[in-house]
Amino acid sequence: DFLGALEEVHAAFGSSEEELASCVTNGIIRYSPQIDQMLLEGKLRVEQVKKSERTPLVSMLLHGRAGAGKTALAATIAMQSEFPFIKLISPETMVGMSEFQKVNAIARVFQDSYRSPLSVIVMDDLERLLDYTPIGARFSNSVMQAIAVLLKKQPPKGRRLLVLATTTRHNVLAEMDLLDSFSSEMYVENVRDLTAVNAVVKELELFQSDNDRRTAMATLAKSGIEEKMSIGVKRLLMTIEKARQDSDPIGRFVSDMNAEVNAF
Amino acid sequence: DFLGALEEVHAAFGSSEEELASCVTNGIIRYSPQIDQMLLEGKLRVEQVKKSERTPLVSMLLHGRAGAGKTALAATIAMQSEFPFIKLISPETMVGMSEFQKVNAIARVFQDSYRSPLSVIVMDDLERLLDYTPIGARFSNSVMQAIAVLLKKQPPKGRRLLVLATTTRHNVLAEMDLLDSFSSEMYVENVRDLTAVNAVVKELELFQSDNDRRTAMATLAKSGIEEKMSIGVKRLLMTIEKARQDSDPIGRFVSDMNAEVNAF
Amino acid sequence: DFLGALEEVHAAFGSSEEELASCVTNGIIRYSPQIDQMLLEGKLRVEQVKKSERTPLVSMLLHGRAGAGKTALAATIAMQSEFPFIKLISPETMVGMSEFQKVNAIARVFQDSYRSPLSVIVMDDLERLLDYTPIGARFSNSVMQAIAVLLKKQPPKGRRLLVLATTTRHNVLAEMDLLDSFSSEMYVENVRDLTAVNAVVKELELFQSDNDRRTAMATLAKSGIEEKMSIGVKRLLMTIEKARQDSDPIGRFVSDMNAEVNAF
Amino acid sequence: DFLGALEEVHAAFGSSEEELASCVTNGIIRYSPQIDQMLLEGKLRVEQVKKSERTPLVSMLLHGRAGAGKTALAATIAMQSEFPFIKLISPETMVGMSEFQKVNAIARVFQDSYRSPLSVIVMDDLERLLDYTPIGARFSNSVMQAIAVLLKKQPPKGRRLLVLATTTRHNVLAEMDLLDSFSSEMYVENVRDLTAVNAVVKELELFQSDNDRRTAMATLAKSGIEEKMSIGVKRLLMTIEKARQDSDPIGRFVSDMNAEVNAF
Amino acid sequence: DFLGALEEVHAAFGSSEEELASCVTNGIIRYSPQIDQMLLEGKLRVEQVKKSERTPLVSMLLHGRAGAGKTALAATIAMQSEFPFIKLISPETMVGMSEFQKVNAIARVFQDSYRSPLSVIVMDDLERLLDYTPIGARFSNSVMQAIAVLLKKQPPKGRRLLVLATTTRHNVLAEMDLLDSFSSEMYVENVRDLTAVNAVVKELELFQSDNDRRTAMATLAKSGIEEKMSIGVKRLLMTIEKARQDSDPIGRFVSDMNAEVNAF
Amino acid sequence: DFLGALEEVHAAFGSSEEELASCVTNGIIRYSPQIDQMLLEGKLRVEQVKKSERTPLVSMLLHGRAGAGKTALAATIAMQSEFPFIKLISPETMVGMSEFQKVNAIARVFQDSYRSPLSVIVMDDLERLLDYTPIGARFSNSVMQAIAVLLKKQPPKGRRLLVLATTTRHNVLAEMDLLDSFSSEMYVENVRDLTAVNAVVKELELFQSDNDRRTAMATLAKSGIEEKMSIGVKRLLMTIEKARQDSDPIGRFVSDMNAEVNAF
Ligand SMILES: Nc1ncnc2c1ncn2[C@@H]1O[C@H](COP(=O)(O)OP(=O)(O)OP(=O)(O)O)[C@@H](O)[C@H]1O
Ligand SMILES: Nc1ncnc2c1ncn2[C@@H]1O[C@H](COP(=O)(O)OP(=O)(O)OP(=O)(O)O)[C@@H](O)[C@H]1O
Ligand SMILES: Nc1ncnc2c1ncn2[C@@H]1O[C@H](COP(=O)(O)OP(=O)(O)OP(=O)(O)O)[C@@H](O)[C@H]1O
Ligand SMILES: Nc1ncnc2c1ncn2[C@@H]1O[C@H](COP(=O)(O)OP(=O)(O)OP(=O)(O)O)[C@@H](O)[C@H]1O
Ligand SMILES: Nc1ncnc2c1ncn2[C@@H]1O[C@H](COP(=O)(O)OP(=O)(O)OP(=O)(O)O)[C@@H](O)[C@H]1O
Ligand SMILES: Nc1ncnc2c1ncn2[C@@H]1O[C@H](COP(=O)(O)OP(=O)(O)OP(=O)(O)O)[C@@H](O)[C@H]1O
Ligand SMILES: [Mg+2]
Ligand SMILES: [Mg+2]
Ligand SMILES: [Mg+2]
Ligand SMILES: [Mg+2]
Ligand SMILES: [Mg+2]
Ligand SMILES: [Mg+2]
Repeated sequence: DFLGALEEVHAAFGSSEEELASCVTNGIIRYSPQIDQMLLEGKLRVEQVKKSERTPLVSMLLHGRAGAGKTALAATIAMQSEFPFIKLISPETMVGMSEFQKVNAIARVFQDSYRSPLSVIVMDDLERLLDYTPIGARFSNSVMQAIAVLLKKQPPKGRRLLVLATTTRHNVLAEMDLLDSFSSEMYVENVRDLTAVNAVVKELELFQSDNDRRTAMATLAKSGIEEKMSIGVKRLLMTIEKARQDSDPIGRFVSDMNAEVNAF
Repeated sequence: DFLGALEEVHAAFGSSEEELASCVTNGIIRYSPQIDQMLLEGKLRVEQVKKSERTPLVSMLLHGRAGAGKTALAATIAMQSEFPFIKLISPETMVGMSEFQKVNAIARVFQDSYRSPLSVIVMDDLERLLDYTPIGARFSNSVMQAIAVLLKKQPPKGRRLLVLATTTRHNVLAEMDLLDSFSSEMYVENVRDLTAVNAVVKELELFQSDNDRRTAMATLAKSGIEEKMSIGVKRLLMTIEKARQDSDPIGRFVSDMNAEVNAF
Repeated sequence: DFLGALEEVHAAFGSSEEELASCVTNGIIRYSPQIDQMLLEGKLRVEQVKKSERTPLVSMLLHGRAGAGKTALAATIAMQSEFPFIKLISPETMVGMSEFQKVNAIARVFQDSYRSPLSVIVMDDLERLLDYTPIGARFSNSVMQAIAVLLKKQPPKGRRLLVLATTTRHNVLAEMDLLDSFSSEMYVENVRDLTAVNAVVKELELFQSDNDRRTAMATLAKSGIEEKMSIGVKRLLMTIEKARQDSDPIGRFVSDMNAEVNAF
Repeated sequence: DFLGALEEVHAAFGSSEEELASCVTNGIIRYSPQIDQMLLEGKLRVEQVKKSERTPLVSMLLHGRAGAGKTALAATIAMQSEFPFIKLISPETMVGMSEFQKVNAIARVFQDSYRSPLSVIVMDDLERLLDYTPIGARFSNSVMQAIAVLLKKQPPKGRRLLVLATTTRHNVLAEMDLLDSFSSEMYVENVRDLTAVNAVVKELELFQSDNDRRTAMATLAKSGIEEKMSIGVKRLLMTIEKARQDSDPIGRFVSDMNAEVNAF
Repeated sequence: DFLGALEEVHAAFGSSEEELASCVTNGIIRYSPQIDQMLLEGKLRVEQVKKSERTPLVSMLLHGRAGAGKTALAATIAMQSEFPFIKLISPETMVGMSEFQKVNAIARVFQDSYRSPLSVIVMDDLERLLDYTPIGARFSNSVMQAIAVLLKKQPPKGRRLLVLATTTRHNVLAEMDLLDSFSSEMYVENVRDLTAVNAVVKELELFQSDNDRRTAMATLAKSGIEEKMSIGVKRLLMTIEKARQDSDPIGRFVSDMNAEVNAF
Repeated sequence: DFLGALEEVHAAFGSSEEELASCVTNGIIRYSPQIDQMLLEGKLRVEQVKKSERTPLVSMLLHGRAGAGKTALAATIAMQSEFPFIKLISPETMVGMSEFQKVNAIARVFQDSYRSPLSVIVMDDLERLLDYTPIGARFSNSVMQAIAVLLKKQPPKGRRLLVLATTTRHNVLAEMDLLDSFSSEMYVENVRDLTAVNAVVKELELFQSDNDRRTAMATLAKSGIEEKMSIGVKRLLMTIEKARQDSDPIGRFVSDMNAEVNAF
């Protein structure tokens, strides 16, 4: 039975569900229709892995600007799959590891996944896993090679694997020839219009009243911010929480939003 | 007797036939006349190794774009040789190895081959074996030197060896002076016309009826896709399997094919 | 009770309050209105960490020219938070450490902070922690990666953390993509007008009489120094103390100030 | 007596005569007058080492394109010297060695040679001994330095040494300042005219009859191949053996020769 | 009592006075008024360290051309301070040390200095301590970082430290951002006029008589050497001693001076 | 007594006289007046070290083209000094040493020299000691730094040291700032006129009769070779010995000289 198998897999290899849940602490706010589209796309991939005879390995790269919501989305899709093996590979657990140890830790997760009939692996912040830095374009070649090889390695007969990876550095992965190793990609966009901002502000109840919110949004609209606006939902959240501490949340929110948008 | 010798060799060094078979899980679809030509060319090389007194060592490099079908073809030629010693050297088994260990693992396979009267070695994804990355053109020089030397090293008297290697990076091997070490090359082309696409779609029975298939192909033809089309058979397979999951396979297949072709 | 908790945390992990106090040996002189604004901004961040449900991790980068007063300000904000866990990460304690040891020392401080309900970490001279040198743009990539990851790592449930970092190399951190890891920034400006110089000189009682001071300031004003003046408060202090040793403090101070300002 | 001394030397240090013989498995075909000239030049050097009081150390670099016949010629000259100490230093025996081990292995051969009154050392494929790769112009500096020093080191009193080295990378050795360390050079040319091709084809009895051979050569002549022809004797041999397997050797040989010549 | 403290410090950490004395074997010849100015400037710094409450750490960089007399001057200032702790950090004692050992040796001297109430540290030939080479601008980053940090590290309460460093590579230290770490600089100029040359020659009694000296100086003056003259006092000394060996010291001195000056 | 001291020094540290003698196996032929000048210059340096009170350390760099005779000259000057401590530092004895071992071996020779009242050290082929290669301008920075420091390190009181170094790479040492460390330089020129060639040929008795020699020289003169001639005496010797083996020494010598001269 499925539940039994699930428990067995969990017992043997542990599960990252708690960690993944903590990647979505502020939930997934449906501030634009694209959010639903992305979740649906994720579900489709999950189905494909489950059912196609010919594609036991599917991988998807979620890319977008810093704070766009990539990790939260990948974690959500992974958790919704309800596959018995769900694991997060994150640079946070690899601080201080040598290249060799990283390669082994990553390879080990793939190895473990091959023992479960259905598995999802989330690889968060690919460029950090690779120790990538734009200065001199340095990175761990051995980690990169290992990932490139593991992303192409067919699971053994009867095993199926979905890999979800996130990155802010689509261009770098392209230069590395690493994109060829993914079967698909998904672009996670920044918040770009005030309708979305309004939705988030409303959901988080930043202001005392709907009137205040409307005043704030109207002021923002008048400032012409929408034209050049592009802000990650993560940074938007930070701006909202900062404004919340202020004695004048409206003024602070409006001025900070303008500062954020003009900083780039 | 031959069978006895074969079994002895197998017993002593193992065989990669299962691994090689798993490289051709979706078979070799004869979607164009070039497929047959390539298989024939492979057979000719096998014969040459078997019979010429003066060329106990022949090597062939299969090169082409990502997903063009290089590995499946090399594996097929190797298996059809029916030589007693058939081995796959693949980066998949070398994840986490040091340069030194890789050199030794590769040298060991060549050493072992010298004990069998007739041997085939398949070296898959040469650029990955070399840990090549385009950023800074880094790679393992010691693995490269070892391969260059092993590709020129005559087997001992009475032993014959065919080496089949695959790569997506013909240009890089050229820059490395590694091409001089091969006795011949074979270019594996992408799928470039709708006749070939149609053959693959038909073989894999993507659509419910021949009518549906013809509709899909006609729509593709009208979209002018053929002009710029160049898609690896591997990616074509992935697109087909994705479309199969959709409630509207025709629409999905047509739109995905267009997306694939326009992505480059 | 709070005091009990505070003592417990101190007992377990030690505290850097003495070291931080020694970063402000010459006090914070309020020579311009910006000094108060900066201290207030610091207090606001402290409040945000204490109170917001959604932002348990806030980080701020103090940047400015060499000697602008960055370290003294960060230390002052940290000490004023009165959080139970207050730690200084400084290159001074890491002379002679290997990259690996540095990464571990830094990670350890973050780890320790996760055990206190409220924590402040001051990371002084980020570019030195990274062993950055402009010649060849060399730096410790592993320390950089560790910091980038730790700056994004959410503390465990119920724990909150404020990180204050200082640097003279905002541009380098930008090139490293490290700015994305901070939630906010604060620019610490050099002393740029004679009113501020006068305030500092007065506070430090360089001259025997107010008359002497006014003479000195008038001479400086006449020399047209204000136009191009930009001097860190630290260097200003050094100039004052040097002048104090001279038999003619007025003459020495005026000429040295001119020399300092013209050196750049 | 000479034979006794020879045996003693062999017993103490071994001899590479078998390996050297295997470098000339297809013999030295005298397809052009230059072949004799080169063999004579070699003999002259042998005499010089044997007889001059003032030049106990002579070294010669054989350079030319890949497959030009360099190794076969050097091996032949070495074997014809009939010196008691004859050793081959080849990259084939050094696969997987560290730089340090290579330096020692090479130095050891020179050391051993100093114990024989007359010695020849053949250093094959210098650029491979150096692990040279054109990408980034990487190579083993320590092996290079060792060779540079050993090529200038006078043997002890009463000992004489001839060093024969081969390379395809004359230009690289020049850039390395390594040419200064050789006392002389010899250029081994590719096959460049049909008379030479005809001589080789005849010697190897590719065709059933002289008539067939003449037909083939006439067709080649008509195709205007001679103008741009430049093919190593090694590759010519490979082309001949390939054609031999074909049901139509004439057609295959003509078309393959054209392909070979046009590939560059 | 002071003498007791001094002896204690000497006993505990040793003293470099002998080594420093040997840096001034040929004395300090007062060949120009700048020599006195530089010695006075040094004395002023010594006083500042002794007396100011606010600047317990002062550092000065002596820079100039090769042989200008930097080391002799730094040693003289250090010895004249009569501080109980006087130490020389010189590359001569670090030949063959690893980077790690160097960092430790340097850090150890600073550590030791913190135990004396008043200390001077002379760091000779900074660019050699850093293993700097202009080819490829290589240097020991870890030694550089250690020095940068130690030059900014406040001594513990009640301890005072003067650091005197010498270098020929002011520009390189500037590129390294190392100048920011010094509180002051002093430029040591080459000998640039014949009056100074005359003073040195007189002091060293190169010639038999004053007449000879005047003849020599007149000849030099006539040769127009003064216009382009720039020679380190160290090289001037070498030229004088060379001339002293000659049967014709006047002729030799004049011609060698011209050669020296024209060499650049 | 001197002889006793000499023997003691020899006993304690060994002597390189035999090795140095073997650097001059073909003697010093006085083929031009410059040869005598160079030997005299060497003698002068020896006297200076012996007698000056102020320059206990003198160093001289002999530089010139490959084979110009640098090593033979340095060895001759060293042997003629008759100092009790005479040592050769040569790359030949350092094949296979690590950088660390080289630094130690070199430092050890200097250390040993400090125990003898009078010492000469010959450092042969500086660029090889440094493992210098023009490709990428690689070299051992630690050996370079060690040499730079040792060349400036004063011997202890009462000890005197002359260092003679040879190199073909004056320009590289300049780029390394290594020339500043030498007190003097000497340029060893190639053979550039037929008078010198004639002198060498005569001395070595290449031809049967004076008539033959004159014929050869006349032919060379007519060929206009003198205009562009520049050949090291070492290569000239090799050409002579080669010609000696030929049945027609005159013809061979003339043609080889032309070949040598035209090769550059
Ligand atoms: N529609 C949404 N999509 C994604 N995240 C959302 C959404 N709505 C709210 N969030 C919240 O926004 C935050 C997104 O942060 P997340 O870490 O996923 O961004 P990121 O793109 O991975 O950032 P980084 O580039 O720094 O890794 C999370 O706290 C998440 O709960
Ligand atoms: N005619 C064909 N030639 C090659 N492969 C075919 C053919 N028909 C079907 N296939 C299937 O297509 C797939 C080709 O994938 P394969 O791994 O060989 O491509 P590849 O060029 O090696 O890819 P990569 O560049 O990623 O290594 C295999 O699953 C194979 O079974
Ligand atoms: N308003 C002020 N702000 C900051 N520092 C002040 C102020 N008034 C006085 N000071 C004193 O000035 C000095 C500032 O030095 P500090 O080390 O903070 O500068 P910094 O910018 O960190 O220098 P560096 O770039 O070298 O690290 C301290 O001694 C501090 O006590
Ligand atoms: N005249 C000849 N000169 C040289 N080799 C000849 C000649 N005639 C026939 N051969 C044969 O041709 C082959 C030459 O191959 P060889 O390995 O010597 O070439 P190479 O230049 O060393 O090649 P590579 O550049 O790959 O090292 C040998 O098998 C040799 O027996
Ligand atoms: N006025 C002077 N100033 C400095 N040195 C002098 C002076 N007069 C004489 N000397 C002598 O000149 C020599 C100066 O050499 P010193 O080693 O100090 O030069 P330097 O600039 O440190 O050289 P380098 O760049 O090689 O380190 C010493 O021997 C010193 O005794
Ligand atoms: N006048 C001379 N000067 C130098 N060498 C001479 C002279 N006359 C004859 N010789 C001989 O010429 C040879 C010179 O070779 P030497 O090794 O000294 O040259 P080199 O410049 O050191 O060469 P390399 O650049 O290869 O190190 C020696 O054998 C020496 O005996
Ligand atoms: Mg993320
Ligand atoms: Mg493949
Ligand atoms: Mg600071
Ligand atoms: Mg060869
Ligand atoms: Mg000095
Ligand atoms: Mg020499």
